[in-house]
Amino acid sequence: MTPEMALATDLFARLREASADPPGVTRAAFGEGEARAHDFAAQAARDLGMAISHDIAGNQYMTWPGRDRAAPRIVIGSHMDTVRHGGNFDGAAGVIAGLAAIRALRDAGFVPEQDIVVMAIRAEEVVWFPTPYCGSRMAFGLLAPGDYDEVTRSDTGRSLAEHIREAGGDPDALKAGARPLDPAGLRNFIEVHIEQGPTLEQTDHPVGIVTGIRGNLRYRHCAITGQYAHAGAVSRAYRHDAVLAGVEFVSRVERLWDQNDAAGRDFVATIGEFWTDPQMHGITKVPGEVRFTMDLRSLDNAILEDADAALRAAAAEISARRGVAIDPGAHTNAPPAQLDPALQQAFAESARAQGIAAHAMPSGAGHDCATFAWQGIASGMLFIRNQNGSHNPDEDMRMADFEAAVRVLADALRRLG
Amino acid sequence: MTPEMALATDLFARLREASADPPGVTRAAFGEGEARAHDFAAQAARDLGMAISHDIAGNQYMTWPGRDRAAPRIVIGSHMDTVRHGGNFDGAAGVIAGLAAIRALRDAGFVPEQDIVVMAIRAEEVVWFPTPYCGSRMAFGLLAPGDYDEVTRSDTGRSLAEHIREAGGDPDALKAGARPLDPAGLRNFIEVHIEQGPTLEQTDHPVGIVTGIRGNLRYRHCAITGQYAHAGAVSRAYRHDAVLAGVEFVSRVERLWDQNDAAGRDFVATIGEFWTDPQMHGITKVPGEVRFTMDLRSLDNAILEDADAALRAAAAEISARRGVAIDPGAHTNAPPAQLDPALQQAFAESARAQGIAAHAMPSGAGHDCATFAWQGIASGMLFIRNQNGSHNPDEDMRMADFEAAVRVLADALRRLG
Repeated sequence: MTPEMALATDLFARLREASADPPGVTRAAFGEGEARAHDFAAQAARDLGMAISHDIAGNQYMTWPGRDRAAPRIVIGSHMDTVRHGGNFDGAAGVIAGLAAIRALRDAGFVPEQDIVVMAIRAEEVVWFPTPYCGSRMAFGLLAPGDYDEVTRSDTGRSLAEHIREAGGDPDALKAGARPLDPAGLRNFIEVHIEQGPTLEQTDHPVGIVTGIRGNLRYRHCAITGQYAHAGAVSRAYRHDAVLAGVEFVSRVERLWDQNDAAGRDFVATIGEFWTDPQMHGITKVPGEVRFTMDLRSLDNAILEDADAALRAAAAEISARRGVAIDPGAHTNAPPAQLDPALQQAFAESARAQGIAAHAMPSGAGHDCATFAWQGIASGMLFIRNQNGSHNPDEDMRMADFEAAVRVLADALRRLG
Repeated sequence: MTPEMALATDLFARLREASADPPGVTRAAFGEGEARAHDFAAQAARDLGMAISHDIAGNQYMTWPGRDRAAPRIVIGSHMDTVRHGGNFDGAAGVIAGLAAIRALRDAGFVPEQDIVVMAIRAEEVVWFPTPYCGSRMAFGLLAPGDYDEVTRSDTGRSLAEHIREAGGDPDALKAGARPLDPAGLRNFIEVHIEQGPTLEQTDHPVGIVTGIRGNLRYRHCAITGQYAHAGAVSRAYRHDAVLAGVEFVSRVERLWDQNDAAGRDFVATIGEFWTDPQMHGITKVPGEVRFTMDLRSLDNAILEDADAALRAAAAEISARRGVAIDPGAHTNAPPAQLDPALQQAFAESARAQGIAAHAMPSGAGHDCATFAWQGIASGMLFIRNQNGSHNPDEDMRMADFEAAVRVLADALRRLG
């Protein structure tokens, strides 16, 4: 085993032991498990001669000094919290990959041009604090001042501000507009993360090179209002059937997906909830109401805007013809994050040079990397092949695949200087 | 006001007063409201010189003697129970129409060839005893022996047998196989009932002549099993989306309905319930499960059988293509009831002779009349135009429409002899 893999294997084992919560592990954001994960990473970094610092939001920076300390840095980062009874790799693998790559580069006698910083980011799993990318957004001062007192942790009920203060941070300065990280001081941001889906497993690639992070349009409260009626007594002409209207609408969503696929336009649609009212529905009753959710994703926000327009037109047409009201309700838009082509190119060359099969693919799920890309920082992501998805105790990355990702990362860092 | 309309108006008013339960009226099957309704009808019948008797299931027979007491009788009947907080007309209108028609015929000096019997049928509303056409089926000995002790009233929790005994009946004889009514002793059965849908109102006909009572296929536990997955991480090729599979299946149901309509084949389909699991679903989760119900109706059981076969084939095809399992689950089949063409002809001639606009239409809902038709008795139904549906306190038949139905009924009885 190489020294960098010994380092990684040891860190994963210590993390798992310290946060075991059968089945799986639990590392709550701003909780004890996350704090111990940051400590273990800091110890390993100190052993590599790296300097440890923290920002006032609790994020931890482990710095390997470069020749030019004033040059914009390369930051390699991910989060170290997990969902409850989650897996050991979602998040932590990115921090450990950064440390392992630095170990390998250092052992090879490489000295970087600029500082290379491994960042352990706080509070990424929204199950704890329901605001996306909490830690990385705090680093850039992107949370609204009110969020610090209003956003509370789902289990403790205590505010984000209280948890930050307890971790040694300064929520008052953040509320007052502090921006601990200056985008101008960063040359690149790189996040290594396990893939949360089966694509790399199915296509037999140990590593994925992420082409972009999909943005989304989310409609949480779509509603169809028709008219409840006696299924025996009311004939077809007089029905206003909310289920049949909803079924036609969802068919249109799927047809739009077909059309986008055929045109090579990146698009994903999920109708995760679709339900008649259990208090009102019945087998012999024409259904009068349906509620559903809609989650649309794309690498291109224009495709999402087109989809919104097309589906609103479909809703209006179906509503008029069937005598129902289809109301998509309020929606939110998280724009896609563009990832840096030069970084993707560097990853691809590094993989090719080492005979590692790498697959270019979008990230359908969000990651802290999106926050950095939105700040205009040239950013990139590597996925590691992973079994059984994530956010569950069966998540199961192979260490050989982790090693492949570390080798791609280290080689790319060398190419970047 | 004619004497027969005075009789009807008085009976409706007494019924409403005796069973008022704001909003609306409540006459539980084998409850106090139903018993008083039977008593009021019996009083009115006695005033018309009719003889009152009861069978051992609690059904009440009010007999107007004909010239030939041994000839097969004509029975005019409906139920007198209501749903909780229901309307005053659903059921009772049929019994009162029979008494009013006899009053009119008697006043005109008509003497029937055979006995004409008005039957107040027990326990039609399944909300009380969950077995269809309970009273009329008991009259023909059609309940299973076990039903008498096993079927309980939804509010009291007491068995059907206890309620029958309390009403003066003999559940032990019924359990032992007694058949109070002999189909051979009946020439015709006629049920007058308010329409429970808007067809007569929309087409501007006071009276409907029912062409048949639709049978049904009911699937109470249709289930689709796909696979829950992360909506961001799992791409289209690896999804097994239960909602999209369900939407395609329901689209096929509607397409089958279109095809049957185009071919003039009587068919109605209702997907009254369709739901993802609230414990499992979420906006960012590919849905792994759907449950739904399916209620298919037709005047022709062969059309229902064809639909079952076509939809099972569609389910198999969709399941294979999408990698899900669509299981329609167990189903029940209530066959359609054929209504007598000669009776429909008599009703049509009677309506025409009196300038009453009558509309030929199927009954999508079930009625006691189906029990008589299934026994091979030449049976017919008249619908009365009615506002706001039934089974609700706003049910609102116009008395002028009731009068039109009584005139058609009386004239048809005269034509029948």
